[in-house]
Amino acid sequence: MRVPTFLGRLWGAAERATGGGGARKAIAHCRALLSERGEATGTALAHQALGACLALDHDERDAMFDALTRDFSPEPERVGKAADAYRREPGPSTLIRLQETVEPPRQELFRRLNMAPGGTAAVVELRRRLLRGLRAHPEWAALDFDLQHLLRSWFNRGFLVLERIDWRTSAMVLEKLIAYEAVHEIKGWPDLQRRLEADRRCFAFFHPALPDEPLIFIEVALTRSMSTRVQPLLDVDAPVGDPDQARCAVFYSITNCQQGLRGISFGNFLIKQVAVELQRELPQLRSFATLSPLPGFRPWLERQHVAGIDALAQPGWQQAKRSDALPVLVQQLCAYYLLHAKQGSQPLDPVARFHLGNGARLERINWLGDTSDNGIARAAGLMVNYVYRLDEVERNHELFVNENRVIASREVEHLARESPLSAAAAAKAKA
Amino acid sequence: MRVPTFLGRLWGAAERATGGGGARKAIAHCRALLSERGEATGTALAHQALGACLALDHDERDAMFDALTRDFSPEPERVGKAADAYRREPGPSTLIRLQETVEPPRQELFRRLNMAPGGTAAVVELRRRLLRGLRAHPEWAALDFDLQHLLRSWFNRGFLVLERIDWRTSAMVLEKLIAYEAVHEIKGWPDLQRRLEADRRCFAFFHPALPDEPLIFIEVALTRSMSTRVQPLLDVDAPVGDPDQARCAVFYSITNCQQGLRGISFGNFLIKQVAVELQRELPQLRSFATLSPLPGFRPWLERQHVAGIDALAQPGWQQAKRSDALPVLVQQLCAYYLLHAKQGSQPLDPVARFHLGNGARLERINWLGDTSDNGIARAAGLMVNYVYRLDEVERNHELFVNENRVIASREVEHLARESPLSAAAAAKAKA
Amino acid sequence: MRVPTFLGRLWGAAERATGGGGARKAIAHCRALLSERGEATGTALAHQALGACLALDHDERDAMFDALTRDFSPEPERVGKAADAYRREPGPSTLIRLQETVEPPRQELFRRLNMAPGGTAAVVELRRRLLRGLRAHPEWAALDFDLQHLLRSWFNRGFLVLERIDWRTSAMVLEKLIAYEAVHEIKGWPDLQRRLEADRRCFAFFHPALPDEPLIFIEVALTRSMSTRVQPLLDVDAPVGDPDQARCAVFYSITNCQQGLRGISFGNFLIKQVAVELQRELPQLRSFATLSPLPGFRPWLERQHVAGIDALAQPGWQQAKRSDALPVLVQQLCAYYLLHAKQGSQPLDPVARFHLGNGARLERINWLGDTSDNGIARAAGLMVNYVYRLDEVERNHELFVNENRVIASREVEHLARESPLSAAAAAKAKA
Amino acid sequence: MRVPTFLGRLWGAAERATGGGGARKAIAHCRALLSERGEATGTALAHQALGACLALDHDERDAMFDALTRDFSPEPERVGKAADAYRREPGPSTLIRLQETVEPPRQELFRRLNMAPGGTAAVVELRRRLLRGLRAHPEWAALDFDLQHLLRSWFNRGFLVLERIDWRTSAMVLEKLIAYEAVHEIKGWPDLQRRLEADRRCFAFFHPALPDEPLIFIEVALTRSMSTRVQPLLDVDAPVGDPDQARCAVFYSITNCQQGLRGISFGNFLIKQVAVELQRELPQLRSFATLSPLPGFRPWLERQHVAGIDALAQPGWQQAKRSDALPVLVQQLCAYYLLHAKQGSQPLDPVARFHLGNGARLERINWLGDTSDNGIARAAGLMVNYVYRLDEVERNHELFVNENRVIASREVEHLARESPLSAAAAAKAKA
Repeated sequence: MRVPTFLGRLWGAAERATGGGGARKAIAHCRALLSERGEATGTALAHQALGACLALDHDERDAMFDALTRDFSPEPERVGKAADAYRREPGPSTLIRLQETVEPPRQELFRRLNMAPGGTAAVVELRRRLLRGLRAHPEWAALDFDLQHLLRSWFNRGFLVLERIDWRTSAMVLEKLIAYEAVHEIKGWPDLQRRLEADRRCFAFFHPALPDEPLIFIEVALTRSMSTRVQPLLDVDAPVGDPDQARCAVFYSITNCQQGLRGISFGNFLIKQVAVELQRELPQLRSFATLSPLPGFRPWLERQHVAGIDALAQPGWQQAKRSDALPVLVQQLCAYYLLHAKQGSQPLDPVARFHLGNGARLERINWLGDTSDNGIARAAGLMVNYVYRLDEVERNHELFVNENRVIASREVEHLARESPLSAAAAAKAKA
Repeated sequence: MRVPTFLGRLWGAAERATGGGGARKAIAHCRALLSERGEATGTALAHQALGACLALDHDERDAMFDALTRDFSPEPERVGKAADAYRREPGPSTLIRLQETVEPPRQELFRRLNMAPGGTAAVVELRRRLLRGLRAHPEWAALDFDLQHLLRSWFNRGFLVLERIDWRTSAMVLEKLIAYEAVHEIKGWPDLQRRLEADRRCFAFFHPALPDEPLIFIEVALTRSMSTRVQPLLDVDAPVGDPDQARCAVFYSITNCQQGLRGISFGNFLIKQVAVELQRELPQLRSFATLSPLPGFRPWLERQHVAGIDALAQPGWQQAKRSDALPVLVQQLCAYYLLHAKQGSQPLDPVARFHLGNGARLERINWLGDTSDNGIARAAGLMVNYVYRLDEVERNHELFVNENRVIASREVEHLARESPLSAAAAAKAKA
Repeated sequence: MRVPTFLGRLWGAAERATGGGGARKAIAHCRALLSERGEATGTALAHQALGACLALDHDERDAMFDALTRDFSPEPERVGKAADAYRREPGPSTLIRLQETVEPPRQELFRRLNMAPGGTAAVVELRRRLLRGLRAHPEWAALDFDLQHLLRSWFNRGFLVLERIDWRTSAMVLEKLIAYEAVHEIKGWPDLQRRLEADRRCFAFFHPALPDEPLIFIEVALTRSMSTRVQPLLDVDAPVGDPDQARCAVFYSITNCQQGLRGISFGNFLIKQVAVELQRELPQLRSFATLSPLPGFRPWLERQHVAGIDALAQPGWQQAKRSDALPVLVQQLCAYYLLHAKQGSQPLDPVARFHLGNGARLERINWLGDTSDNGIARAAGLMVNYVYRLDEVERNHELFVNENRVIASREVEHLARESPLSAAAAAKAKA
Repeated sequence: MRVPTFLGRLWGAAERATGGGGARKAIAHCRALLSERGEATGTALAHQALGACLALDHDERDAMFDALTRDFSPEPERVGKAADAYRREPGPSTLIRLQETVEPPRQELFRRLNMAPGGTAAVVELRRRLLRGLRAHPEWAALDFDLQHLLRSWFNRGFLVLERIDWRTSAMVLEKLIAYEAVHEIKGWPDLQRRLEADRRCFAFFHPALPDEPLIFIEVALTRSMSTRVQPLLDVDAPVGDPDQARCAVFYSITNCQQGLRGISFGNFLIKQVAVELQRELPQLRSFATLSPLPGFRPWLERQHVAGIDALAQPGWQQAKRSDALPVLVQQLCAYYLLHAKQGSQPLDPVARFHLGNGARLERINWLGDTSDNGIARAAGLMVNYVYRLDEVERNHELFVNENRVIASREVEHLARESPLSAAAAAKAKA
């Protein structure tokens, strides 16, 4: 999928044009932008500096990030003195002085880069590049901290605009959905069109400075009852339902689009505002639920050494009925996994972490919910419904955060209790 | 002029509803918003906290600002330790720790308040209220520093949108121009309409989160030659000129609209971008000039004890011709004032400071340029043209900043040299 | 009120430029536009022809209308033959031939004029001019018939767009409301602003080819109960009510804006669609009623020679209470007027004709409903409520059209029966 | 390509629901709409009548068209009398009476149908259905005449809106381009995207009542010089050129979209306005030319019996160079064809008729201009450039219309003179 963008072209063009010594040149432009002159002729200098930064090849870029890390940090000695002064005599003037001293000059640099046309997109892109090298360059962490801090402020919820996406949306935005969709791949335009039919809804957050770039989007199916299987929702040829007959809104895919905004969370806000919008448009809706993957379940399962689950290695196990021994066992283990498998005090499963952290309730485990290769490989075909009730999300969230409690339906709790691992844990506890 | 706004109504409604103990309640809401819970139910809590803050009466508001100053600052002891650690061992982790410790918690509070509907407007309004009490409460300076820092980041040039204002603009925006115009009062709708006719242009910067609120606007007259007198431009009944015949764009009024954004500068960007827009629309334009007041001239003049200027106290002096003795003398003194009267290293006159700092050139001094009471009282009727040449603003700005040089036309420089004060200074220097 | 428009400027400019012989020149341009050439270079020729027509002074214009009447009509002889052929042998080819022969060439001329920029506005303007002279030139009636026929087709309901007018509407449109309001004069911008507050609604029909020109607009007050007096609704300083508390939508003014569209009716559609829109926005509304003038009542009353009504000639009669003898008498006579005073089979009162023809019900007569000079002079201060119930307008309309029945409330029917004129009529009938 | 539309769904839904006797019912609804009642409750009745008409199956539809033809025509006897009266005494009243009598009642019916939501689209659709049966039902010609007359008036150039189509356009419109493209098939979304890149332009006319339906669209390539071959323009992988380097705008495809608007010409206006738009956007453009097919050339050629052209039946002839004998011969014959092959007084080739009629100049004949199967089959691979010079189209058009002259370049005229057919004609003339 070709996603040509203003920035892509800019970067590409620049890349071809540059020679050696680019990092030095780019940093020189950055210094000029930070100087007095930057004040008067801001946008022009910002444009030059941005062009120079984006024009760098890989090695040069690393050199630039090194320089931004090394030379645009606060000076330890001055920081120490300012902190001493504040410690000695806390008050407005010492505090202001301290803050001015502690703020890395690169923060102001990024703000000034933003004055150029396309500046916001470029700063997001810079962070994307930085993140790709961060593991290899842990010393860039402070630089990343600055960028993330700034972008979190700029992409504050208050500045985001919720937009409905449908077949009237511009192709420029629609092709981004195809390119970005991370959960259930969109296989071209007819697939996309089906996902925007009368029995579907799609919403995205946009930022005014990036009008053609969705930040995050969610796909919703309007159904008679809570969906338990995702394949019917993804079927391009499925008949189009009547939205007025729908009683349930199923959030079956949510995708963060901008790698450069990693760590800045939009999903929580998006789900809740979309629920409000849908309730307003379709007052007859009775429930809002996800149909979610469990990306960590099967790897975890394979570490558990529970008798009977090696049947999953045999061909044909997918023919088993929901009430057969294997399916029951797998669902019990899945319930146990979601309720008790932890990473620190948090659920091990990242999707569970997200929805439970948002205040959703773990409602149901679905056998053969996702029979795609991916679904089989990651979660033995299981999927989960999390339910959002707007009047209980706050309470659920607090129980989750303060008491590490996973709010689940009786059915799921029962499944977990029946799992062999619970029995083992109980036996151990007794012993 | 009644300017009812969303915020005004919100504030008003809240004000009537509140009782005592409001500050304590508001601060409690703010703390809740900053807590873990704020993460999950952000917008609802933000809405409550905002309402509570805006609902305060004057005394309560002071109490709230006191609490924000006192209780939401960084802790000196922790700051000191973090700074020590960074001084000892500068590196990503100590730096990140330091920055987290130094940032006052109220910064995050303001960012979270912004999640509520109307949040941005409310934060701007909070600062407006704060500024009104700042002189009486110098201890709020650090709080103001935080707000200004945040707002400068949010109202970064890259997020502003330039919009042309004309008779097709909404009445909601137009009435703001009438209410805000600070240089040459707009006397009702017919006056405004004249200023938006075919031979005029008006542009404003807007922020996407404040769609009905101009941040700054500029009024431009399209003329055959550089205007020397402002009264013809303000005459509601003046015949409408043909823009295609214009050779000069005269910026005759520029107004900052938002008191809550004081200290965040938009004017420099606005003038330059408007010049670019006008050049694109009307390629035949040859010059871009202001027709500017000199708000500090007459007070300064009255402190100078120069022989002959007491004639300005006599009635009828305005009948003098430009080449008469008094006018010549006053213009010479004005030239001297603009070139040599300083506040530190900067021009004493604030308007001069602004335009020269932007890289404009001081072009001409106009006798009887503004014969309104105001113009007479502040500047003995003089006005000034500053000229913006896009190809020289950068150089002018640098000379101005680095060498304190005022770039002026030969005519103005000549006037200044001929002034009695120059002679006195020369005599002094010689002696 | 200055209403400068594209057309006004065009007309004005042209008017100044033209000399004698203009009508001949304009007609020549029209012939060129109708020729083969018009096919290829349509818009350019249309632009010229339009300019030439609009440039004519009064006498020339009359000459042009004469020529359009005389020379652009179908030829009687050819028409006769085509009709004979159709009479002899009715069928597709004779019918097509007949229609081609009968259509006056000016119809095609007007359609081609419409290709020029601003063409639609110009054709509407042409008809406005024509209508002003029509009484003096009855021979232009066929020309007017053609224009009206064409404009009725172009301004078909299906092409009109309903738009809400509020304080966010462009000043260019808003000033038109001030200029056009025909029922209760809008006294400047503050008066207009009050009429667009939260407890009011205003809607207009627009045509896409005239984006800045409302065709018709209606003003609505949202009230607790059906308004009986108009002065409170027109009070600029009246407190703004809460629309959520409203139970009644009072249509207190409806104005046709375009004289050039006289005879093409929009009001019926507008009222009904506005009722639908309001019901959707404010489901708690219980009734939709007008507060209407009776422009023909007092002139009729003065012709009636009923004992007691000469009290209306005495000063101070407005101090009488609603239940006093004079008010009761006047209301009885008014009810009689509305139910029984006819012009042919239709009500004599034009406003009654309009609303009753739309299927409204005559609900209530209001003593001192309009105490303005106008209200006193035309209707002795009375006003009327007509009620629109969407589920009965069709039936009412049919009874009105087919049986000449005026649908009225019991109260109004009772008043009419009690009036001295009814008694006189009954006596007469008996005798 | 699935093109679901409002109308399609309406029609489809209706079709499934209807039983027998539908035509009678539909006609009854139409009569109701034309009655007095239609005046009051227009839009509701129109909605019903429209639904009933669209719900008919094929046979019923024919019955409805029969009824509209038979029962909604003017009455011959009354027409004859009105014509007699006008012949006897031509004047406004007899003329108005005549026009009222001659206009078929179905005209008013169609106008009233247009009041329903989606009415305009439905009337266009009705005509599309009518046209499909017209050949089998020549008696419907008068009905078609009425529909065409009305639609020509409604879709007058003055009501059309030119819009640029690009990758920001809604998918709903873009998929119509894919579905409708009639000249060079668009093979899916990537093909479409290439045709909307930076070195291309696409424009369409829209009518405000059909906002998602292009009426006609044109595809333009911006090139260094006049394109002689279409395949490079259609290559999805062709590198994207720089529009600032372009000197020529090549109109390589123009498609009428609405079958229901057949016979109503938009192409002439579109080409000329697009040329004006492009010249404004890209002042460096030097020429505006088409790259056009010759759909009638090869069939004509095969009727000519010229020695040597049977080589076109041999495989491999496409390897010949432009200056070889066969190519030269074919081009000579093509020039002769375009200049001298006539249908009446008009060029035999329909594309030539269109562009020459618009005032274009026949500029160049291109060997192997279109090597697609279609291009080979219809035109032996030839294509033609017609050039539009805005300052000569009017003159060219008049010469073409009045003197049947084809304006061609010297090169083409020379080719025609050298063709064997010219020699034969000359020989014949001499003999």
